Amino acid sequence: VATWRLDPATTHLNHGSFGATPIEVLHHQRRLRDQLESNPVDFFQRRYQPLLETSRRALARFLNADPDGLVFVPNATYGVNSVLRSLEPALRPGCEIVITTHTYNACRNAVVDTAKRVGATVVVADIAFPIAGPSQASAAVLDAITPATSLVVLDHVTSATALVLPIAEIVADLEPDVTVLVDGAHAPGMVEVDIAALGASFYTANCHKWLCSPKGAGFLWVDTFHRTSTNAAAISHGYNGAWPASSSDFHARFDWTGTDDPTARLAVATALRVMDEHRQGGWYGIRQTNHELVLEGRDLVCERVYMEPSAPDQMTGSIAAIVVPQSLASHMSAFDLVEHLHHQWAIEVPVSAWPGSGDRVMRISAQQYDQVADYERLATALGDLTE
Amino acid sequence: VATWRLDPATTHLNHGSFGATPIEVLHHQRRLRDQLESNPVDFFQRRYQPLLETSRRALARFLNADPDGLVFVPNATYGVNSVLRSLEPALRPGCEIVITTHTYNACRNAVVDTAKRVGATVVVADIAFPIAGPSQASAAVLDAITPATSLVVLDHVTSATALVLPIAEIVADLEPDVTVLVDGAHAPGMVEVDIAALGASFYTANCHKWLCSPKGAGFLWVDTFHRTSTNAAAISHGYNGAWPASSSDFHARFDWTGTDDPTARLAVATALRVMDEHRQGGWYGIRQTNHELVLEGRDLVCERVYMEPSAPDQMTGSIAAIVVPQSLASHMSAFDLVEHLHHQWAIEVPVSAWPGSGDRVMRISAQQYDQVADYERLATALGDLTE
Repeated sequence: VATWRLDPATTHLNHGSFGATPIEVLHHQRRLRDQLESNPVDFFQRRYQPLLETSRRALARFLNADPDGLVFVPNATYGVNSVLRSLEPALRPGCEIVITTHTYNACRNAVVDTAKRVGATVVVADIAFPIAGPSQASAAVLDAITPATSLVVLDHVTSATALVLPIAEIVADLEPDVTVLVDGAHAPGMVEVDIAALGASFYTANCHKWLCSPKGAGFLWVDTFHRTSTNAAAISHGYNGAWPASSSDFHARFDWTGTDDPTARLAVATALRVMDEHRQGGWYGIRQTNHELVLEGRDLVCERVYMEPSAPDQMTGSIAAIVVPQSLASHMSAFDLVEHLHHQWAIEVPVSAWPGSGDRVMRISAQQYDQVADYERLATALGDLTE
Repeated sequence: VATWRLDPATTHLNHGSFGATPIEVLHHQRRLRDQLESNPVDFFQRRYQPLLETSRRALARFLNADPDGLVFVPNATYGVNSVLRSLEPALRPGCEIVITTHTYNACRNAVVDTAKRVGATVVVADIAFPIAGPSQASAAVLDAITPATSLVVLDHVTSATALVLPIAEIVADLEPDVTVLVDGAHAPGMVEVDIAALGASFYTANCHKWLCSPKGAGFLWVDTFHRTSTNAAAISHGYNGAWPASSSDFHARFDWTGTDDPTARLAVATALRVMDEHRQGGWYGIRQTNHELVLEGRDLVCERVYMEPSAPDQMTGSIAAIVVPQSLASHMSAFDLVEHLHHQWAIEVPVSAWPGSGDRVMRISAQQYDQVADYERLATALGDLTE
């Protein structure tokens, strides 16, 4: 059973933002760091590459992805930036890049910058929130497609609104010449990710969220068509094949992007194993129990604040968004609510202002360290604000 | 006195590639990580920014740089990539980007990619090696300047050849409309860096090399003219000011570029203090004693292999390059030599093939953990190869 280093005096209902890491994984990472510090040259020049391959192969198996197309990045934001910069020479002025009203702000910024550089138009597909079902989401994206569409950027699980989008269905409905970049930041470990079956051109995500690796580990998977033209956001020695001795030029361009602390990505295989051994049913069991717990927590909180769930269960993974009614502490902004719950109740839970409506949207999470009592505590805290 | 976690059974003569970190600094970093793991949300949302400002201010003082223009990056390669990508919209087809024959391979790759994107020409200034004096270097760079020169990229201390280039003199001789990017990867902590006095447009460097911070800390300083147009290589929330609450938009664009382990950059202030307290004379004393030791080591090795120093003392900091005579183990490549010294002698010292001549160039370093006996050991190992 995995144990955690999380402060027991705090109620942790925001696994989604930065994740958390089992102690066993942190200990493994510390041993790697001690090796690194005892002889940095030996570590980087002789030990790093085989350790990286072990992590890559374990992650590729977990994602059902071809390891030849899989590289590590510090986080999904870096993955998205790498893809956009690499696609720029192929994007023509007047082309359209489709994002959605739920696209993660950091990635929308990266898309806006790329559009400006190449003279493209950013088209925003309006996905309803609250939402009735997945077909509403796929219809909104498909409605935004025109003959000028070159690239579609989709969140697998949306950030502020916690919706699992029907990525596979959307990809299947698109013309094959449309490039699809999936930002799966929150997805692996929360929902099943089968990259081979998905058919996207690019898939990037974090390992430090729901795979519970140390912070600073993410991945980017690239299909065979785009592999030779895809570079890391920071070009380094791999660009001319000088270093490191990776199994391919594509790998080399990402395996080394300058000196940093690589131990988070080297600990991914261990994180996958530790979590798999955590409970009966392994990763399937983790996804299932987290999903059931977040639904129970969501219903409990919704009932207390007299709200309906904002998405059906089938569009919910291990995070759930709850619209905070306008009548509840109407003088408090989203930020005020977060700080109030932190300072008065020692509850960590994110709240954001949803641009569509101005509503305050609270997002709860369920990870193996959470219990029903945690959501009851949140419900009590919110009830206290109502009175 | 700083103590180190380096394996005592190894002779460490390659501080230059990846640095090394005093145990006291590593302990401070571990405490930061423990704080982070106990509540990642609280750490990133409330504690990170003030800790970052403390590091930034300490580093700005050390560099005599305006903190408003100073941001952290993972390493100098990332800094160079960020600058090039940010400059691209202003670079016109047909313009010239000047680098040198000593430009670090990773950064040359980044320049080549930018030149390809904007239709610029890369002009390579041929700096002699071995070299007689600094004026030979500045003349070579100035000879490469034409009215079409838009950007000059200069190493402050060259990597394979260990030359301290006369950056200030070169900048002073250039027209003010020429943008200068200094890659100071090896410079801070090895030579005095006075950014205010330098007059460059951009200065990027590593903290994990000669400032002895943990790995994954570097900085980028940007002059006032370029600050509003300079973005991190990975665009994130700061692009539209959404996060974090930094003291300026410029800071925000670099202070948060997606989740990673930020503790290396947060430990920079501690690294600066620990090293300053390490010996009489503080940082000046460290630079001076490292410089004297590397010259002694260089002379000792040069004598044993019957070579002349390849650069004058005034162009040498705490690393020194020694051309390996062709007669010495002529069947061994640069890589073979590195591996031989590692496996047979437990000596870590880099050797590279210098493209100009095909010569094998060995680079030794001197840091506070080194002693004359270390260079004697290297001389013995090389002498053994001669017989």
